Amino acid sequence: MKAIVNVFLKAGVLDSQGKAVHHALDSLHFNGVEDVRVGKQIVLKLNESDKEKAMADVTKMCEELLANTVIEDYTIELV
Amino acid sequence: MKAIVNVFLKAGVLDSQGKAVHHALDSLHFNGVEDVRVGKQIVLKLNESDKEKAMADVTKMCEELLANTVIEDYTIELV
Repeated sequence: MKAIVNVFLKAGVLDSQGKAVHHALDSLHFNGVEDVRVGKQIVLKLNESDKEKAMADVTKMCEELLANTVIEDYTIELV
Repeated sequence: MKAIVNVFLKAGVLDSQGKAVHHALDSLHFNGVEDVRVGKQIVLKLNESDKEKAMADVTKMCEELLANTVIEDYTIELV
């Protein structure tokens, strides 16, 4: 089973990487961009076939390592 | 319209960040993980309503700035 974890800065937290990309796109004359947010996508290959168990495991991984829950949110998708 | 761009290292390119995360998960006794790949997710808010035009624009952004196409692949999803 594969778990796709997306980790993003919470709304309201300054996304300096996103701002930098936005600025760079402006410099390259891409004018139709209103906002840019940059996050991480982590793809985990798991040898767990039980969906509920996998979701519980990956949630624990996010809380303990993958996301800084003070400033970041995460979503988990199992495929 | 929103464009979600995922940028990943090509298969075969060493993903040192993924390896580091895998190692850290092992250290935390998450033993059910076979492989970890870490990529970037870039969410662009566009003021373009034509889907084809938006896709063409974002593809150009990826080629010129968002992805290093020598070592990275990208996917674009419009929502």
